[in-house]
Amino acid sequence: MAPPHPFDPLSPQEISLAVKYIKDAYPGHNVIFRVVTLAEPSKAQMIPYLQAERLAVSSSKPPAVVPRPRRIAHVQFYLGDSSDFREVRVDLGSGERLEESKLEGKHSYLDETLMQACEKACLADQGVREAIELLELPEGAVVCVEPWTYGTDGMRDMSRRLIMCYLYMRLSSHGDANHYAYPLDLCVEMTDELEVLGIFNLPSGVDDRYTPVTEGVRKFDRSKIHGSSEYHPDLVPDRRTSTKPYQVVQPDGPSFHTDGNLITWEKWRMRVGFNYREGLTLHDITYDGRSVFYRLSLSEMFVPYGDSRAPFPRKAAFDLGSNGAGVNANNLKLGCDCLGNIKYFDAYLHNTFGDPVKFPNVICCHEIDDGILWKHTNYRTGNAVVTRSRILVLQTIITVGNYEYIFAFHFTQDACINYEVRATGILSTTPINKGDSVPYGTLVAPGVLAPYHQHLFSLRIDPAIDGYENSLVVEDSIPMPLDDPKIHNPFGIGYTTTKETIETETPLGTDITKARIFKIINENVRNPVNNMPVGYKLVPHYSQMLLAHPSSLHAKRSEFCSHPLWVTRYSDRELYSSGDHTMQSFGGEGIASWIKSRASSPASNVRNQDIVLWHTFGTTHNPRIEDWPVMPAEKMLVSLKPVNFFTGNPAVDVPVSTQEKNKSVLVDDGERNN
Amino acid sequence: MAPPHPFDPLSPQEISLAVKYIKDAYPGHNVIFRVVTLAEPSKAQMIPYLQAERLAVSSSKPPAVVPRPRRIAHVQFYLGDSSDFREVRVDLGSGERLEESKLEGKHSYLDETLMQACEKACLADQGVREAIELLELPEGAVVCVEPWTYGTDGMRDMSRRLIMCYLYMRLSSHGDANHYAYPLDLCVEMTDELEVLGIFNLPSGVDDRYTPVTEGVRKFDRSKIHGSSEYHPDLVPDRRTSTKPYQVVQPDGPSFHTDGNLITWEKWRMRVGFNYREGLTLHDITYDGRSVFYRLSLSEMFVPYGDSRAPFPRKAAFDLGSNGAGVNANNLKLGCDCLGNIKYFDAYLHNTFGDPVKFPNVICCHEIDDGILWKHTNYRTGNAVVTRSRILVLQTIITVGNYEYIFAFHFTQDACINYEVRATGILSTTPINKGDSVPYGTLVAPGVLAPYHQHLFSLRIDPAIDGYENSLVVEDSIPMPLDDPKIHNPFGIGYTTTKETIETETPLGTDITKARIFKIINENVRNPVNNMPVGYKLVPHYSQMLLAHPSSLHAKRSEFCSHPLWVTRYSDRELYSSGDHTMQSFGGEGIASWIKSRASSPASNVRNQDIVLWHTFGTTHNPRIEDWPVMPAEKMLVSLKPVNFFTGNPAVDVPVSTQEKNKSVLVDDGERNN
Repeated sequence: MAPPHPFDPLSPQEISLAVKYIKDAYPGHNVIFRVVTLAEPSKAQMIPYLQAERLAVSSSKPPAVVPRPRRIAHVQFYLGDSSDFREVRVDLGSGERLEESKLEGKHSYLDETLMQACEKACLADQGVREAIELLELPEGAVVCVEPWTYGTDGMRDMSRRLIMCYLYMRLSSHGDANHYAYPLDLCVEMTDELEVLGIFNLPSGVDDRYTPVTEGVRKFDRSKIHGSSEYHPDLVPDRRTSTKPYQVVQPDGPSFHTDGNLITWEKWRMRVGFNYREGLTLHDITYDGRSVFYRLSLSEMFVPYGDSRAPFPRKAAFDLGSNGAGVNANNLKLGCDCLGNIKYFDAYLHNTFGDPVKFPNVICCHEIDDGILWKHTNYRTGNAVVTRSRILVLQTIITVGNYEYIFAFHFTQDACINYEVRATGILSTTPINKGDSVPYGTLVAPGVLAPYHQHLFSLRIDPAIDGYENSLVVEDSIPMPLDDPKIHNPFGIGYTTTKETIETETPLGTDITKARIFKIINENVRNPVNNMPVGYKLVPHYSQMLLAHPSSLHAKRSEFCSHPLWVTRYSDRELYSSGDHTMQSFGGEGIASWIKSRASSPASNVRNQDIVLWHTFGTTHNPRIEDWPVMPAEKMLVSLKPVNFFTGNPAVDVPVSTQEKNKSVLVDDGERNN
Repeated sequence: MAPPHPFDPLSPQEISLAVKYIKDAYPGHNVIFRVVTLAEPSKAQMIPYLQAERLAVSSSKPPAVVPRPRRIAHVQFYLGDSSDFREVRVDLGSGERLEESKLEGKHSYLDETLMQACEKACLADQGVREAIELLELPEGAVVCVEPWTYGTDGMRDMSRRLIMCYLYMRLSSHGDANHYAYPLDLCVEMTDELEVLGIFNLPSGVDDRYTPVTEGVRKFDRSKIHGSSEYHPDLVPDRRTSTKPYQVVQPDGPSFHTDGNLITWEKWRMRVGFNYREGLTLHDITYDGRSVFYRLSLSEMFVPYGDSRAPFPRKAAFDLGSNGAGVNANNLKLGCDCLGNIKYFDAYLHNTFGDPVKFPNVICCHEIDDGILWKHTNYRTGNAVVTRSRILVLQTIITVGNYEYIFAFHFTQDACINYEVRATGILSTTPINKGDSVPYGTLVAPGVLAPYHQHLFSLRIDPAIDGYENSLVVEDSIPMPLDDPKIHNPFGIGYTTTKETIETETPLGTDITKARIFKIINENVRNPVNNMPVGYKLVPHYSQMLLAHPSSLHAKRSEFCSHPLWVTRYSDRELYSSGDHTMQSFGGEGIASWIKSRASSPASNVRNQDIVLWHTFGTTHNPRIEDWPVMPAEKMLVSLKPVNFFTGNPAVDVPVSTQEKNKSVLVDDGERNN
């Protein structure tokens, strides 16, 4: 078997090997494995390796002799219990342990094993049972527990991991009945050792406060019971029958080819990666043999809620850093998610004992048709030429408790990369007394409040536009002045562009009034036709930034959420824009802190350097009742488009659309099929 | 045969009848027909008619006896020649001529007949031939003429229609060779009587000016000749073969049903209209029997160029008012534009003699799959439920000289309507001397400048949200204050929304920093679950507005281009946001003028009234070289989404996605098909 590519995730054997080395190092200790993942080689090592590789591909000669980077595992584990959290890098060849350190005051993410343990412990707790008793729930009610990470609010000692258990109930014996339709007036604070710290009533009236249950009894209001909050087909059997089948047929198979984690499609070539935290990552992306991006990944996301009443400020989830996009990735075959010819990628992660665990079908690779790519009709000849746009989709879907996120990279034939995010799933609800309403939430069912919240994503863009030294240019479109004698603008209609090349690390703002675009350019490579530097532009998804006050813990913990764009100097260890450890973090660990730490040092220079762009985007989600009981996907789209990178439309050679190939079917007037 | 529906376009017979009435009224005159189209009945007439019709549909009883509005044709014509431009409405029943008037100082649009006549006359003109001679064009060069409407710049008497003829050449005998690759240093000013007013050199160097050819000779620079600017498959025979066929199969046929211009699909019901100017229009749109929109249409578009040198300020096209989206609509079968099961709609327009002319396949109706509509995985049971999004597309494509626009209304199963615009086609180029560059254009080929320009669209949204009295609410998401004792925000993370109901006609601005949304609500109808007024929200396409100075003729002529959103009181005769007559207009005729004319009168009240929204959006198009020689479609999307209109997700009953229906195909690792 060929040796793994340096970007390939750890194989099950490599995971086991890393685990063995750690266990051997701590004989007689109980080692709880939290992270065993590939430590990607430094870029300094990878650049010559990839250049040799590309040369070999283009010249079909064997690769030059470039040292293959060592396989190194990045491991995080608890020694004994979670009070002793450690990190180490393990050389899988020699077994050597590198940079071992204690992670004082840091906490690992919350995983499903712990969540399920919390649920059980919570329901088994005598105090909780008594509190539930007092609610006098209806016959047949099944209480469900939603464990949440504790969003730091300064109300508790943070030396241990804390889990917030929000209680719900379902009234059906069906396991998929929607318990979010019945949020209970109860919540439980627990430690990760499953010790109950307190049992509380939630604020359920406009002026209620977060209070220990001992302060008073609140019976469940039976008038909240309703029958309209289900989504599962078993419980919504009466479904529309008007939607006829729609199939994608690819008689000659897909246009892509895969070889392990290497994907080639049309003129694109890239490597797929996957890890517990970011989930899907993309590496060494080239078009027609030219380097475009070194690495693309979702760096972090933050979901803060706008309800100011305790304990709801604790609902502030870092779904990557504190939950993990990889460990929460769906098996896409289960959901029957795609059409046409689909290639699935599996991933190998591990359990807390360090045993490798297969996560099947966490990434799907397929093609979609996106309508017209380009068209022109010459009215003189009446000849129309039209091409259709084929897109390669690399998709992963995660479930984080109530919500689903669909993350997809789209590669186009005209050399664009689009990153599409869809938010779906079920709203996280809280109880509200019948008749009450609050200005920071939507009533979606009787006694059910869907609080306002934001979803803010941080897309990490590590460019390599025709090389690894790039610059960022901010380009605005502005009117020409009317009264400048040096400017010829007699009709007052002239406009031009201003271009500012960014010199040092900084956050940046979007500006629609100036049609601002952000160009990643290579100042060392010029377009042969118009002599402009080659580049790619970022077309942002315009979004509101964080609403929480800059002095709040939310703002301090989510530094990336203050600005839509950031540019930093590349550093091997800077992957997560809210810091490596978001669980119960206090802030000061993210992208703004990095920039501050290097301010006015040469390391902050980003002109003609190895740079990284970070795009913050998302949605201020003030729920519609139409988002209930399950939310129609809300789409967000970010684009990376070539600008002066080619000498013309790279898709000019796409085959012309023909009926012979399309086999479309004419529908006669009045045709009906039911 | 059933009588036409009041919204049905004029039939060929009705066109001929209208024409006959006019000809009879002017015996012995040469009548040149410019417009013979349906005069849509007043809304006052239509409301009771549609309500009776809906009642009949829902109760399947025969419609109540509501007077059927008279069929009336709206006619514009020249009497004798274009110096006598007239307008009249003709009652097709009685032949009665209503509101006949002379359109003093107004001009009709530029059509293909006149464009082709101009091309011929231009090339036949002795002076033009001599000027071309002086260029000393290469052997086999074929000169092409691009006639343009004259964007008012104050340099010419405007009593007649003027046509700007820009000259290009192609070097291939192939009729579809790209002549935009060779813009010549020549342009000709003509009247619509084909009289040449002047022959000029274009500014081709940085400091050149617009000068009569008599002032000097400019030979064509043969070093501009290049071979890389073609798009037609005959001329780009070497096309990529890696794109495998991709077909959409609908074994049970489409999910839509058509009956004449009536379309029903899923729970939607609407009527399709079509006219010479707006092209595709939609009428009486309902979901599940509830009224949503009375009329949706593209009202206008403006394409001003940013090159300040005469004569380029004249390049400022109103592609609807001065060219016409209907008369320039593509025959969609020619282009083989869609996949799956497609229903085409034909249109009937007319020639200048008044003879009906069939425009086949100007609208296509088909379905597309849009990926995941909603999904949720219950991690407790491991059960995933996923539905796919089916969309009904109503599409029309227009060619206006060099450019193509693809206009599509998308109807979704979750009751949204999206309006998608794609801009494609070929850049309008001007000559530039080798070695020169200007700050308001991109060099796309040797000696070829693609000037900066904007595309600004005006979408007219005539809502009828559960009735015809609606209001507009501007809703912003804003942080809760930190220091207001009346506000409980101890953690500084609270946020809420402000809602302003608009009282009088006004332009409005978007504001991403506030996540501003625009809600069209019906204050008289409340959501039964949360008691909020029913509504739809507009999700705008964020765009830069007009760059031309407010004092410029561009700005005065394109009033809608100053703000992204406008709300007006409904008026039967206000359909075009730059006024009824944009050809060589001087301004003062558009949406801002309407509002000014009614300011502080009761007619300006828009709260709980019959209102119209106008959304201005588009793109500042500073060409990339990748847009050449044919432009990959640039997409813009506007959405209309229900907010508290339903009691929950209207798509909760969409059938679950299953492999049995999807028939997807698993791709094995390493599979290749070439």
